[in-house]
This record gives sequence, structure tokens and C-alpha cells, in this order.
Amino acid sequence: MTHPSFPMDLHQVEVPPPQSFFNSLKYSLKETFFPDDPLRQFKNKPPSKKFMLALQYFFPIFQWAPKYTFHFFKSDLIAGITIASLAIPQGISYAKLANLPPILGLYSSFIPPLIYAMMGSSRDLAVGTVAVGSLLMGSMLSSEVNPNEDPNLYLHLAFTATLFAGVFQAALGLFRLGLIVDFLSHATIVGFMGGAATVVCLQQLKSILGLVHFTHGADIISVMRSVFSQTHEWRWESAVLGFVFIFFLLITRYFSKKRPRYFWVSAMAPLTSVILGSLFVYFTHAEKHGVEVIGELKKGLNPPSLTNLVFVSPYMSTAVKTGMVVGIISLAEGIAVGRSFAMYKNYNIDGNKEMIAIGTMNIVGSFTSCYLTTGPFSRSAVNYNAGCKTAASNIIMSIAVMLTLLFLTPLFHYTPLVVLSAIIVSAMLGLIDYEAAIHLFKIDKFDFVVCMSAYFGVVFGSVEIGLVIAIAISVLRVLLFIARPRTFVLGNIPNSMIYRNVEHYPNAKRVPGILILEIDAPIYFANASYLRERITRWIDEEEDRLKATGETSLQYVIIYMSAVGNIDTSGISMLEEVKKITERRELQLVLVNPVSEVMKKLNKSKFQNHLGEKWIYLTVEEAVVACNFNLRASKMNPKKEESEGWNSV
Amino acid sequence: MTHPSFPMDLHQVEVPPPQSFFNSLKYSLKETFFPDDPLRQFKNKPPSKKFMLALQYFFPIFQWAPKYTFHFFKSDLIAGITIASLAIPQGISYAKLANLPPILGLYSSFIPPLIYAMMGSSRDLAVGTVAVGSLLMGSMLSSEVNPNEDPNLYLHLAFTATLFAGVFQAALGLFRLGLIVDFLSHATIVGFMGGAATVVCLQQLKSILGLVHFTHGADIISVMRSVFSQTHEWRWESAVLGFVFIFFLLITRYFSKKRPRYFWVSAMAPLTSVILGSLFVYFTHAEKHGVEVIGELKKGLNPPSLTNLVFVSPYMSTAVKTGMVVGIISLAEGIAVGRSFAMYKNYNIDGNKEMIAIGTMNIVGSFTSCYLTTGPFSRSAVNYNAGCKTAASNIIMSIAVMLTLLFLTPLFHYTPLVVLSAIIVSAMLGLIDYEAAIHLFKIDKFDFVVCMSAYFGVVFGSVEIGLVIAIAISVLRVLLFIARPRTFVLGNIPNSMIYRNVEHYPNAKRVPGILILEIDAPIYFANASYLRERITRWIDEEEDRLKATGETSLQYVIIYMSAVGNIDTSGISMLEEVKKITERRELQLVLVNPVSEVMKKLNKSKFQNHLGEKWIYLTVEEAVVACNFNLRASKMNPKKEESEGWNSV
Repeated sequence: MTHPSFPMDLHQVEVPPPQSFFNSLKYSLKETFFPDDPLRQFKNKPPSKKFMLALQYFFPIFQWAPKYTFHFFKSDLIAGITIASLAIPQGISYAKLANLPPILGLYSSFIPPLIYAMMGSSRDLAVGTVAVGSLLMGSMLSSEVNPNEDPNLYLHLAFTATLFAGVFQAALGLFRLGLIVDFLSHATIVGFMGGAATVVCLQQLKSILGLVHFTHGADIISVMRSVFSQTHEWRWESAVLGFVFIFFLLITRYFSKKRPRYFWVSAMAPLTSVILGSLFVYFTHAEKHGVEVIGELKKGLNPPSLTNLVFVSPYMSTAVKTGMVVGIISLAEGIAVGRSFAMYKNYNIDGNKEMIAIGTMNIVGSFTSCYLTTGPFSRSAVNYNAGCKTAASNIIMSIAVMLTLLFLTPLFHYTPLVVLSAIIVSAMLGLIDYEAAIHLFKIDKFDFVVCMSAYFGVVFGSVEIGLVIAIAISVLRVLLFIARPRTFVLGNIPNSMIYRNVEHYPNAKRVPGILILEIDAPIYFANASYLRERITRWIDEEEDRLKATGETSLQYVIIYMSAVGNIDTSGISMLEEVKKITERRELQLVLVNPVSEVMKKLNKSKFQNHLGEKWIYLTVEEAVVACNFNLRASKMNPKKEESEGWNSV
Repeated sequence: MTHPSFPMDLHQVEVPPPQSFFNSLKYSLKETFFPDDPLRQFKNKPPSKKFMLALQYFFPIFQWAPKYTFHFFKSDLIAGITIASLAIPQGISYAKLANLPPILGLYSSFIPPLIYAMMGSSRDLAVGTVAVGSLLMGSMLSSEVNPNEDPNLYLHLAFTATLFAGVFQAALGLFRLGLIVDFLSHATIVGFMGGAATVVCLQQLKSILGLVHFTHGADIISVMRSVFSQTHEWRWESAVLGFVFIFFLLITRYFSKKRPRYFWVSAMAPLTSVILGSLFVYFTHAEKHGVEVIGELKKGLNPPSLTNLVFVSPYMSTAVKTGMVVGIISLAEGIAVGRSFAMYKNYNIDGNKEMIAIGTMNIVGSFTSCYLTTGPFSRSAVNYNAGCKTAASNIIMSIAVMLTLLFLTPLFHYTPLVVLSAIIVSAMLGLIDYEAAIHLFKIDKFDFVVCMSAYFGVVFGSVEIGLVIAIAISVLRVLLFIARPRTFVLGNIPNSMIYRNVEHYPNAKRVPGILILEIDAPIYFANASYLRERITRWIDEEEDRLKATGETSLQYVIIYMSAVGNIDTSGISMLEEVKKITERRELQLVLVNPVSEVMKKLNKSKFQNHLGEKWIYLTVEEAVVACNFNLRASKMNPKKEESEGWNSV
């Protein structure tokens, strides 16, 4: 008896060309740690050129300085002066957040920008201290040493923590571990930043209300209890001053946002507030009516602090822990800010290189009386809007701060703390990105949950708790994706040879007698037993459905494996089990398009041989044609098929 | 001017039919927690039937008991007696591993099997104590209470830990959290079991060498130091006896393995050893020559232990921690064993139901002087080989143990400890599955690393360290898969309309002017920035290649998204950025076959509109045809294309 002639040429699923273990290891390591291929530019270059390129790689200043023009300088000068006018009041304010002397904020805006200007690859990042980092550092260090009781030890601990933050950041960059920062998702950062901003604003209630006593806790409950249990301490003078300045700052920000040409209005507003506030106090002697002022600021440049570093236990472990946490958080902010502006201007930023630059800047900073610095978003945005061209704007800012340190510190004597609080509050309100949260809610509920957990974790717990919860949920989501991959039934889209998910494409038709399943995740230990159960259930349901409708009984189960990126040994055992299950039900298992990694392992584990090479096809269409061909053949000659087909399986 | 006519009908990528948030949440929850759909059988049944089904669901004995036959009973009787003969010496030996009185091993083989016989769904699992669980419990509890100094408190702590293990196991089952066990991969278990077996064997050196002093550490270094620093304590009498029995037990095992019909030879060997050893000691008075014996065993059944449970700190937290760790480890063993045998006999085991059964058995056990029990592999294998038909074989075993407790305990007075050690060593050697490790090495190097870390972690560190390392590496692998997904260039397989990875199919040809990329993992925050960089690099490399060969310049970048199972908001931002990057380079971005989850989000986030609906195709082939059509059109009428095409993008 003749068989019907086979309707098409079939394509073979090939075992990928063999590759030595070391080659594939090399490839994986390269993709994991050098995805941006930084050595690419060094290829086929003479040694002198290679040296120059390496120098430029680690010190981008050698790249842009030779091409520097007077036109660039004019732009950088304006931008530099603008950010300096923001850096001075912000520096003083944020240092207070970290429970450090205000002068440290100025010190930290002098040395680190110079380092970054040489080593950084961003043209827009403006270096300085950040609110969230300062708060985090303050709360972590205060739990070990009371800044009021032992201010010197506390100060030295802050330098030590900054050193460790820098070492940790630079090490991450050197060892190409930038991928750790990738695990802080956008949703986590939105929630975390919003929460931290809320907490920072709450802390400002102390100086705005002129309270003498205040809680050491940062969570909303401690703060509210502290505020409302001491209503008798509230000072209306201070509060009025505070709200006036907050209003002024917000108005200028709103104005500049509406008219980007007048960016300098909002950029200058903090310094203007400081001047106005200081003059007001000077003339009204408000410091005698409950309005606290900064007081004496020491004249002169950064004193060295190398000998102040503390390397004795138990302080050292606190410094290491604080350094790692604040290091990674400030790294995430700095890199995200650098990347965003690089995107606007269409140039590239190497995350690992940035880590080295930021790390070095903190290491050097810790030797010169600076504390944690990175690239704050607000200041960098002002820098960008002011039209900076290169990192030289940081040098200009640094010079301006230097001049302030040398000659102008006495002017800050009468600056009221409440103005600094107003500056912080207005900056922080911009960080509460409720629009991003709404966007998350609309598009991805899970991301919204992550964001809200980070926010509430920070506001009701602490900065660390919020961060840990958000990262844990994000990682859980990834694990859950792997643990419970989706499986779909595919159907044929009418008048085509395309097979797609029948739930997504309701007009796709199931093929009689054949169940086509798609698995959309790698098959790993974490999902192997789930997939076995799920596939069994799909077969059960399909058989029930067919029984109910009285269609052709099920004969083939096709598993479409395009989206199975990898498989491990548990996964292969799972396939073996599925093969046994289908055999026992007299079904033939068919695999379609295993990708190279999977095909390699199917081949090595002999599963390919167990299944029979002819049951692995390159496309669903070819598999369906082959199955249909066999179905027809078995109908024409049932006995023959039985003796040749099922028994030999 | 007329355009060339379009060569084919294109298929639309549809936005999936809208589904309410609660429906999709319900679906996800169901797939996560009820993948096996246990309520399926309850559908469309009258209430009385539903009640019966629920009873049978929780107590499978109601399912099989009514159909029980004399033929079944004969098989179960033989199997039950066989496993009892194994259970008695093993029970006594393993109790010593946990630093507990030997009689507890017998108690634990009496009550728990009865509970399991009612609630368990496996027909082959033989219940009892396990070596690894006993060792783990012993080492964790000893770190809190010294079993020699305060044996009563230690005993009560063991009952409490058993209670918490049971509660934890049952809770996991009730809350359908069986998926936690899935995170113990096959590779982890092979390494962990091998390591634990090695450690257990090392511990036996104490009684085999007849040492009086021995280390409390379980790691190989402490044990070796302890053994070789006290060579003067070694007793040759004990050592000779030990090695003779180990040899005897291994020989019988080898024999039974070669001839499965004589399974009872190896099953009876331990009891035979115990009898021979006891007789030998009785007649030679070897107990006076350094051969330690069990001594007095109390006659009588399990005393109640409900009132002995310890719920006071600091012991309670130790009990909770120990309970959770040993609970999950013994659960993993019990479920894996149950599943393997169910696979052979072609029936199904519900993991969550098994957890409830094993948990209940431990809870009841903790009230009746039993300690941690589960389904040990060795005993279950003997049960299976002895031809058990139902869980009734556990009842037979239980009765045999009961008779032993009532009448035969005095016979164990002269049983030498060294025989028990020999029994443990011979059982443990079977757990060191070096063949599985070789298999892992051949197929999946990463799994091999996981396996070896678990092994060496257990042997050189401790059982907990090994477990933590292995799980951490396994999870890291999953995270790394997500963080660094593979991307491929696709090419056209000659004489077909199929596009596949050019590295896997070296004969596949790249399409001139079009770069086709495939991403093989979900796009999440953890890989979004990597993918952006990697895609940019693919484009760079392709442009360099084209420049070098002088081919048509690049015009289209097609991203084939079949394998992108999901996307989060960071992923969508990444696509937006890639779109901007391609635009700036005057390339058109084209997406192919986004799956339903992804399409939903592209639609909600308006990315679909930004890209233009016409740049999303259902198959690579259609996208290529459309791109080629546009390419040709632009060549025929370049000006028109420029004004209509690129500028409008």
C-alpha cells in the first residue's frame, strides 16, 4: 500500500556547532561583565595610541580638554556660577540633615567636583551632596553615636563611612559589577525617593515650627507624636518665615518650569532666600524671637581629615555598613541622573566608569573633610538648563565655592535655619513624583505595588526597611515569573501558516487531534514540577473538551519551545517525565524549535535520541503538517501505524 | 508615480481582548497557588457527593479502603513486615544521630505511619525518621542545649521542634505554598544529600573506632582532628566488628541490586546484623572490651509528650528555627520520594496535600514522644520493591513496631552500637550519588557547580551553610538569566520563510539593510539597561560590518519579541529609549509578535501609538517583506520617502 506523498520539505533543527567549554564560559563572562565591550576601541591600535586611549578612558578630561573652546567656556562659566548659587545653600542645608556641621556642605562642594571633572564621563552631572543620602547617613550613624554628645567621633565616623562608600563604589566599577545597580527598578526608585522626600520634609517641621525638642525617629508616627505633643513649643514667627519662603521658592520653580528660558529664576531663588532671610534676621534681630540662625562658620578651605578616620571596632563595622548602603543608593541616583541627561544629548555613559569616578571622588573627599557626594538630580538639571557644555562647569562651581569658603562665610552668620528648611522642603516636593506612581498604576499593577511598598516602608518604617521591602518584592516578582511561567494553547490563524495563542487571537483555530502548547520561560528547577503538572492539566482539559464536543481524539502534543531560553537538568528530567506521561496515554510528544542552548542540552542528555529525532521540528507549521500526515497515514492503514508507530516509541 | 504593489496580506498584532483587573488577578493567583486545579473534580456534583469527595481529598484512605482486597492485603503484609525489619534498627540508629534516646526511633515508627496511612496520597511511601533530618536537628538543637548535660530539656526541645516542623509543613500545604519546595533544585538536593551522608558517615567513626571523646563539630576538619589526635583511644575490637558488618551490608545490597527478585536479602540484612551482633556480644562479653552496647530500652508504647513541649524563650526561638529548617528539608525528601514512585506506577501526587499529611503526622508525633519523620528514600524503595499496594503497608509496619515495643525491647540490650553505625554507613553510602554528579557535569556545568557547593558547604562548613550556599547560587542563576538575557541576530534559512539565530544555524543568511534581533527573556528592570546597551552594540557592530563589506547600509532594526514573556515599566522605558536611539541614527524600529501581556502594556503605555501601529508585525517574515517593500519604494522615489517616511517618525 502506498503512503500519501509527503507534502513539503522539512527543515532540520540542528545541534548548534560545538563550542569549547572555555569559549562559551568566556562569552558568558563577557556578556555578564562587559556588555558594553569597552575594549573594542583598543583593537588594532599602536601601543602609544593605546596608552592615550587608556588615559582618556580613565580620565575623560584628556578627551575633551584639548578640544575645549572659548565658546564652551562662556557656557560653562554661566552654568557653573548658577549651580554654585544653588550649591551653597543646599550644601549647608543637607549637612544639617546628616547631623553634620554646615560648613561640611561647602567643603563637599569644593574638592569632589574637581575630581569628577577629571574622571567623570557625564557632561551634565553637577556634583554635590544629596538630601536622601545625607538623611540615610545621618540616621544610620546616629544609631551608633549620638551627634550631640560626641560630635567629634560622629564627624570622624562620617568621614570613615564616606571612605568606605567610595571604596565600595570604585570596587563595584572596577569589578564591573554595575549590574547590581540594575536591581533597583524604576518603580523602587520612584517609591523610595518619594518616601525619603516625605521623611525629609517631616524632619523640617522641627526648624519651621521652632521646636527645641524633637524625636530621633524618622518615621511619620514618631514625628507626628513629637510635633503634636509639644504644641506649646511652636513659634509662630519661625513658622510664618518658613511658609513665606517655601511659597516664594515654589512660585519661582513653577514660573521657571512654565518658561524654561528663565531657568535662572528658580536656580537663583535659594541663594536669594538665604540673602533675604539673613538680612531680615540681621535687621529685626529675629534670632532673639525663636528664629534659630546658623551662627559662626569657620573661614578657610577644607582641612585634611586623613588622620581622623576611625578603624577601630565597634565603629568600623557601622562605618562599613553605612558606607555600603549610602554608597549604592547615591550611586543609583548619580548614574540614573547621568544617563538621563546623556540620553537627551545623545552621548554614552559607561556605568562602570562612572562608578569608579564617583567612588574616587568620595575616597579623596573622605581625606579632605568632605562627606558623601554624588550627582544630585536638581543641581544637574539646573546645570543642563543653564547650558553647560562639559564637566568644566563643575570646576567653575568649585572655584566659586572656594572663594566663598575663603572670604564669604561670615555672611552666613545670620542665615536663619528656617530658610534652609524651606529650601529643603521645596527641593523635596519635586522628588515626590506622584505622576510616575499614577503611570505605574495604569500600566503595571505589580510595579505600583513595589513603588507603594517602598514609599510606605520608608515613611512608616525607615529608609532601610523601605528599600529592603521594595527590592525583595522586585526580586520575588522575577522569581515568580520563573516559578510560574505562562503556558498557552496555540491555534492556527485562518488563511495563514501562523500559530498563535488562542486567548490573544480569539479567531485562531485549534488543530483537530493536536494540542499545541507554548511555554514562555526557561525551564528551570523552580518551575519544572509546575510545568509538568500544568502540561498534564492542559492534556486533561483538551481531552475533556474533545470528549464533550465529540471531535477527533487527541493524538499529538506539540510543545513550542522558542521562548524557552535555557533549560537545566531538572528541566530535562521534566521533559523525560512528560514524555513518559504522554506515552502512557498513547500520545506522541513533539518539540518545536528548541533554541541553541536547549538543543545542546537535549543532545548531550540523549533526550533527543529518546524522543526520536523526527519528533523535533523547526516550525509549528511543519510539525502540524507532519502530524497530520501521520494521522492520515494511520487512518488509511491503522494496523501498520500501530505496529510501526506507537510500539516503537 | 505608482508604488510597487504590496506582495502579501499582512496579519495584525491584536491587542488582547480586555480583561478586568480582578479576572486577571484571579487567573494569576490560581496559576500560582492552584496549578493542579484541585477543585476540578467538585464541579457539578450534588452536595452529598461533594462532602464525600472532600473527605476523600483530605483522607485518601476513604478512597482506597472500600476497594481493599485480600490480594492487596497479602502484598501489603509482606511489604509491611519487610520495612518493619528495616525500620527497627534504622530507627534506633538515627535517634542516636539526633542525640536522642534510641527508643524514640521506635516510637517514631509507630504513631506517624498510622497518620500517614490515613492522610497520605502516596501508595509507596514508608514513613519513618531520616538520617539527614536527624543529624540536622541534632546539630541545631545541640548548639542551644547540651544533650549530655540536660537530656530532659533537650528531649523536650526536640518534641517542640517537631511540633513546629509539623505546623510549618501543614501551613505550607494549607496555604498552597508548595512552590517553596520547588526552589530546592535536583542539583542542590544531590549535593546536599551527598554532603550530609558524608558527614553522617564521618560521625560514625566515633563508635566504629570506639572513641570515648569526640568533637561536637560535624565538619570534616573537626572530625579528622578529633580522630587523629586520639589514636591512643582507638579500639581494634570495635573497628573490626564495624568493618565486618559494613562489608556484610554492602555485599547484600550489591546482591539485591543485581537480582531485584531477592530484594528481601538486603532489606533483612540490617535486622540480621542486629541479631548477629547482639548474639556475638552476649556470648563473648565484648561489651567489656570496648564495644559499647545500647543497654536498657524501656518496654511499652509511646508515652504522651504534650505537656513536655517548651514554649519559653530562649528555647522557643531555637525550636521554631530548627523546626522550619528540618521541616522543609524533610518535606523536600518526602515529596521527592513520593513523586518518584508515583511516576513509576503512573498515579498522581498532590504536593500540597502531601505537605498537610506529613505536617499532621509530625504534629501528632510531637504529642506522642515521636520526633521528626518523613518518607525516607531507602525504606520507601524497599516498600516498593516488596510489592506494597497501598498505604496499608505502613499500618502493618506500625503494628510490627508496636509488638516490638511491647515485648521485644529487652532483646536489644546487647546490641552493639557499632552495628548501628555500620547500618547507618551502609545506608548513607547509597545517598552519595556520584553518578548523578557526573551526569550534571556533562549536561549543565552550572548545575554541577551548585551541586558541588552544596556538597562542600555541608562537608567543610555545616548542613545549614551548604544549603544556604546552594540555594543562593541557584537563585542567583535565575536572577542572572533575567539580568543578562541572550540576544541573537536572526537570519533567513535558505529556501524558506523561517528566520533563526545565525549562530545556531550557520547557513541562515542576514537580510541586507535589516538587522533582526531576538530577545529571549522578559524585559524587566533588572535587564532593561543591559538590553539597551546590547541592542545599541548590535547596531554598532552591524553598521561596522556593513561598512567593512560595503553592503547596503542599515535601515531597519526588527526586534522579534516572541520570547519576551512579560515587560514592566522599566522595560517600556527601555523600548522608548531604543526608539529614540534608532531615530537619531535614521533607523526604523520594528517589533514582531509581542505576546499578549506585552501587547497589553505597549498599548496602555501608548508606546504602540508612538511607534506607529504599522511597525508592529505578527511574523518576522511579514516584517521583512514590509521593510523590503519600503526599501524598494524609497529607492524608486527617495525624495518622497524622505518627506513621508523619516520625518514623520
